[in-house]
Amino acid sequence: MSRLQGSVRVVGAGLLGTSIGLALAKSGIDVILQDASPASAALAIDYGAGREPKPSDSPALIVVCVPPDITASVIATELAAFPGAIVTDVASVKRPVLEWLRANVSALELERYVGSHPMAGREKGGAAAGRADLFIGRPWVIAPHESSSAQATALVTDLALELEAAPITMDATEHDHAVAAVSHVPQLISSLLASRLISTSASEVALAGQGLRDTTRIAASDPKLWVQILSANADQVAPILKAFAADLEKVVEALDEVGKPGSLATLSRTIEQGNRGVERIPGKHGGRQANYATITVMIEDKPGELARLLTEIGEIGINLEDLKLEHSPGAQIGLPELSVAPEVAERLVSELSSRGWRLA
Amino acid sequence: MSRLQGSVRVVGAGLLGTSIGLALAKSGIDVILQDASPASAALAIDYGAGREPKPSDSPALIVVCVPPDITASVIATELAAFPGAIVTDVASVKRPVLEWLRANVSALELERYVGSHPMAGREKGGAAAGRADLFIGRPWVIAPHESSSAQATALVTDLALELEAAPITMDATEHDHAVAAVSHVPQLISSLLASRLISTSASEVALAGQGLRDTTRIAASDPKLWVQILSANADQVAPILKAFAADLEKVVEALDEVGKPGSLATLSRTIEQGNRGVERIPGKHGGRQANYATITVMIEDKPGELARLLTEIGEIGINLEDLKLEHSPGAQIGLPELSVAPEVAERLVSELSSRGWRLA
Repeated sequence: MSRLQGSVRVVGAGLLGTSIGLALAKSGIDVILQDASPASAALAIDYGAGREPKPSDSPALIVVCVPPDITASVIATELAAFPGAIVTDVASVKRPVLEWLRANVSALELERYVGSHPMAGREKGGAAAGRADLFIGRPWVIAPHESSSAQATALVTDLALELEAAPITMDATEHDHAVAAVSHVPQLISSLLASRLISTSASEVALAGQGLRDTTRIAASDPKLWVQILSANADQVAPILKAFAADLEKVVEALDEVGKPGSLATLSRTIEQGNRGVERIPGKHGGRQANYATITVMIEDKPGELARLLTEIGEIGINLEDLKLEHSPGAQIGLPELSVAPEVAERLVSELSSRGWRLA
Repeated sequence: MSRLQGSVRVVGAGLLGTSIGLALAKSGIDVILQDASPASAALAIDYGAGREPKPSDSPALIVVCVPPDITASVIATELAAFPGAIVTDVASVKRPVLEWLRANVSALELERYVGSHPMAGREKGGAAAGRADLFIGRPWVIAPHESSSAQATALVTDLALELEAAPITMDATEHDHAVAAVSHVPQLISSLLASRLISTSASEVALAGQGLRDTTRIAASDPKLWVQILSANADQVAPILKAFAADLEKVVEALDEVGKPGSLATLSRTIEQGNRGVERIPGKHGGRQANYATITVMIEDKPGELARLLTEIGEIGINLEDLKLEHSPGAQIGLPELSVAPEVAERLVSELSSRGWRLA
């Protein structure tokens, strides 16, 4: 039986709205799907993400899944139209929404609103990209405020749990600062770094290794969506970028006068502080990043080879903590990098070697 | 039969020297291993990376694999000690080495020197980390100069080919500019970005997604090595960082006054230029980055599950172009992201679904 009682109204039939609708409908919940574009709504309904609204609808929960710049006003409309419903939204910036609502809806209405933010997405948007399993295992921030009712918070938390996400409660400001640090600043820095490649020659870019690929992967993101996110969270993003710029300036000064006393210390401290920062990122299963042993195997780049390798690792009975397929420019070989617990690494190496695998 | 005739003398028994020695010795080549530390040399010899030097040695090729700050002087010593040998080195910055040699060795000696740089490494250093297969499929830059003989360039190219690397010829300045752009600048930017996390709270860092992990992975690099690399290549790295800083300043200005005309355009242009830059990075097999379709599968996080999935993909007969294991904080599930050619994606989705796999 579902945690959620009553109907759920989803406003906005994009990637997130459709995914929420698909998952809830799968659990047998009555999902009402509304979109300003009848064509978009019809498409999502066709995928099975819900049904058309009826005049008699009385939803218990409303989930607003529209673009960030219209989220607050749509929430206000829904609060007014459905006085018995709890309303949440999934916008990726939370404080501007709450501030707009504080200024534009009554305190009584505001009791029924609790913002939220599922940390899930795909490169592609739209109803066609919707997936019932989009939120499984992902953090889902629930952001209650001083006027929100305990019942509203509980219901939005139940929504996250129903979708198999991991609810994390924090207030809107803390949320916005957190996503500035872990998402918005990395996005801008990655884009700025990738921009430098526009003026790099093809023969130079040919030397690119995994480091460049990793640091610039998210630079492929959608400009239209990101302008909305960045402008909504500008006051949280700007201070972090300024601190970054101040550190960068010291590095440039050190590079400009490498012989000057203190320059090498500045460069060393920059790399050391990066070491300290990256250690703070939690690893798999929410724990501190484990110090895995990595083993690189050379395989022929053809169907089934990687499977054969992993089948044998399964036979050996060792669990992979992570797996990366390295790109090997100009060579028809794959270089999977296996991460395993340090205490089993030696056994894995000897077992793989004795089975004839080439280790790098 | 090997491409290389005669003995090869390797100076420096660290990761690269030991790996080169192991690979050449495996091919039956007489490898002479020399290190300033007798203990390091003995260890590498014990691993099978070569033999001790003898007074009668007359190597055809000398490979200098010592730390960047002493590379040039060791090359000079070797050129003088072995007048019949071609000398190369593997330092990751090439122009300062060449300039020092121009100022300190004769034009006649300089004919026998051609610098090189294998684009390969591991997180761990030292002889114990050495691997005969370290260079397979990796780019190996060969950097001839106006005084180097054709014979010297050919022999160093043969060394790269013997080690199954992909030789790429460019001059020292072009090399240093290239590695500044594709390796040294990304390293500094990743370190500066990760440094920002030192002052981010644990509950905020808990929201980290794959984007943050990717952009900061190389921030875990060794400070001691990087100070040498960055200081040696400071004049190539600084201008790129200054251009980055100028772009960053514009972004900060736009964020400080989001309502000002032009601010949103600046943010949009930043993300768009990042799109353009990242498209320039060549994909697997040296081609332009392919537009792969990605499919995410949900599996139980236990030994053998990933193997079972990949075995079935092998049975279906579809080649994986890339594979990423996503971290799912707080959930005991794995989310392998499969990249395949777009034309086979639909078939893979339907085959996997019909075999009972859960797709995200």
